[in-house]
Amino acid sequence: MSGTVETEQILFTRGVPAAEALPAKLIGDCLHTVLSGPDAKVVLQYGHNGGYLPLRKLIGEQYGLTENEVIIGNGSLHLQDLLAALFLKPGDTVLVEQPSYDRAIRTFRRRGATVIGIPLDLDGVNLEKLELALEQYKPAFMYVIPDFQNPAGVTMSEAKRRKLVELAEKHDFWLLEDVPYRTLRYGGESVPLLRDISPKRVVTLSSFSKLISPALRVGYAIAPADLVTRLRDLMEETILAPVLPTQAAVVEFFKSGYFDTNLAYLKELYAPRLAATIAAIKKYLPGVPFAEPEGGFFVSVNLPGKGNMVELLKQAKDKGLVLTDGRSFFADVLEEGTDTGERFVRLPFCALTPAQIDEGIKRLASPI
Amino acid sequence: MSGTVETEQILFTRGVPAAEALPAKLIGDCLHTVLSGPDAKVVLQYGHNGGYLPLRKLIGEQYGLTENEVIIGNGSLHLQDLLAALFLKPGDTVLVEQPSYDRAIRTFRRRGATVIGIPLDLDGVNLEKLELALEQYKPAFMYVIPDFQNPAGVTMSEAKRRKLVELAEKHDFWLLEDVPYRTLRYGGESVPLLRDISPKRVVTLSSFSKLISPALRVGYAIAPADLVTRLRDLMEETILAPVLPTQAAVVEFFKSGYFDTNLAYLKELYAPRLAATIAAIKKYLPGVPFAEPEGGFFVSVNLPGKGNMVELLKQAKDKGLVLTDGRSFFADVLEEGTDTGERFVRLPFCALTPAQIDEGIKRLASPI
Repeated sequence: MSGTVETEQILFTRGVPAAEALPAKLIGDCLHTVLSGPDAKVVLQYGHNGGYLPLRKLIGEQYGLTENEVIIGNGSLHLQDLLAALFLKPGDTVLVEQPSYDRAIRTFRRRGATVIGIPLDLDGVNLEKLELALEQYKPAFMYVIPDFQNPAGVTMSEAKRRKLVELAEKHDFWLLEDVPYRTLRYGGESVPLLRDISPKRVVTLSSFSKLISPALRVGYAIAPADLVTRLRDLMEETILAPVLPTQAAVVEFFKSGYFDTNLAYLKELYAPRLAATIAAIKKYLPGVPFAEPEGGFFVSVNLPGKGNMVELLKQAKDKGLVLTDGRSFFADVLEEGTDTGERFVRLPFCALTPAQIDEGIKRLASPI
Repeated sequence: MSGTVETEQILFTRGVPAAEALPAKLIGDCLHTVLSGPDAKVVLQYGHNGGYLPLRKLIGEQYGLTENEVIIGNGSLHLQDLLAALFLKPGDTVLVEQPSYDRAIRTFRRRGATVIGIPLDLDGVNLEKLELALEQYKPAFMYVIPDFQNPAGVTMSEAKRRKLVELAEKHDFWLLEDVPYRTLRYGGESVPLLRDISPKRVVTLSSFSKLISPALRVGYAIAPADLVTRLRDLMEETILAPVLPTQAAVVEFFKSGYFDTNLAYLKELYAPRLAATIAAIKKYLPGVPFAEPEGGFFVSVNLPGKGNMVELLKQAKDKGLVLTDGRSFFADVLEEGTDTGERFVRLPFCALTPAQIDEGIKRLASPI
């Protein structure tokens, strides 16, 4: 087997779940149950714009809220796009962590915003740089991924979260906290959500893509009821309702107790992969600083050396590694001359075995 | 039973399928088959942006095309919105039939267009008025529903279709033909699609909402491959991929032979409802001209008399009828003083029994 690993191409590209983590049989059973049950005709008919009501209620309960503060989309990227459409007009400024989720950066730019990256430290966004940015810009919102950040793996400390919420209220901008990885904690202690600190200026985004299946495309946003109403109106105008049977299957997945057993299985599967990633970085890239996540899908490193990303991608390819262009995670810089991702490598570990991870990081570190 | 019909409220509002027309068991079986089958992991994972490949192939075959000319969306409204985003910039002009699908009019307006309605005759769009419009406007596209039009029930004659395609090529604008009702023909002979006449300037939109279930939200567009690529890129940026398991269920629905038996059942269910609608209009509103459709979901009338829509809706409510505001189907007028839908009533008949239809149209015609 190690012979196979040594010669095969290793993909450190997108953050996809492992194939063995997709509970096909359980989802099939849930869908079948839904379509034989009392709501079968409901989940096949028009209606439930803004999301299948029982799922909105269930998510609401999980957050201690009512369904009026919950909206479901066809994936959370869909809701990011709708939020951007509502919040942004051309010329607006959006702040993100630097680096941040590449698709989010592109979404905000497509909706007309200038996207400024605030450097991310190992314990969350750099607050001095954020305050510096707030002297220059009046952002429409700041987009953050406080838990097991994509791409950096960083979890924001509670102290920084408190300060961030305070700054948002003081400077009157929204916080979009995107928490799709939060539930996938393999160790350590959970930190409060931004909305737990103060929900006034916070929209929380999440999804079941990493917890059940990406292709169900069931994402959600938690927001004040009046904002949910505006999102729902825009959603109705553009797609009517999100796909219903798959949402009903998610409800059934919880009701059957499958969610908890599946989550335990995911943690058991992914925890050793995270451990292998951290161990391999320490082994093959000693002294390179990086965030050691306690969960999620990603670890990232800034490779030592001087070459740029074009060379780095080519060298990686020659070594049988496929990487995502690190620059795509970097928005516009706040200060000239700061990092733009030329040596930034994201390592999504969930869909690789520990042996593949070790081999992949060994190759990454090896000289050409 | 007739006692019940006489007192109950009758809803002539949205074009929803009858509850008994939703094949819950068959869809449940299809979903279960898919999730126990060889593609189970595929339809739960990331990928298939632009739509589930086997469904794109299947639809391609139905139109004598390849999958490269097919894109799947979360409903066809979703694709209308993406097409509008690609085709339109603020200040552009879009032409529609007058009346037309209310949500389409709103979509094009939201994307920045001025939407001009070209009067619809009983055999399709009025070509003299269209030519008059083309002297004044250079439209980005014209949106038409050539079969069993929503809301008017009109089917465009073949002669008019030929002339329309010719005008689109001559004046260099796109035709969006929306054909969600086309397959639901209860009598008479099919007329060629616009794309059958010449596909060069035609995008064809359709969906399985009226043929299987609306809440699956499986719609599609047929377009030249380069336009499909652009749509797919925009779709990926906004939602990644459309929901996959439900698309796979549609493929299974065809492969199992369910589609044909279900379609036969739908026609058997809906044909008497259409007949009842036509008969009741002739009985209670004699002499009022209206298109007699041979399929679809809608018959519409312009009520005689002088009152406006606000009064008409109020009077209808007093008579236990719920109508959609006729004005919502009317875009901006081409010529001052022409009809704006003040007496326009759409009668969606599929979700009502013949007895409810007869009673409803009787009430509609009755004096206050």
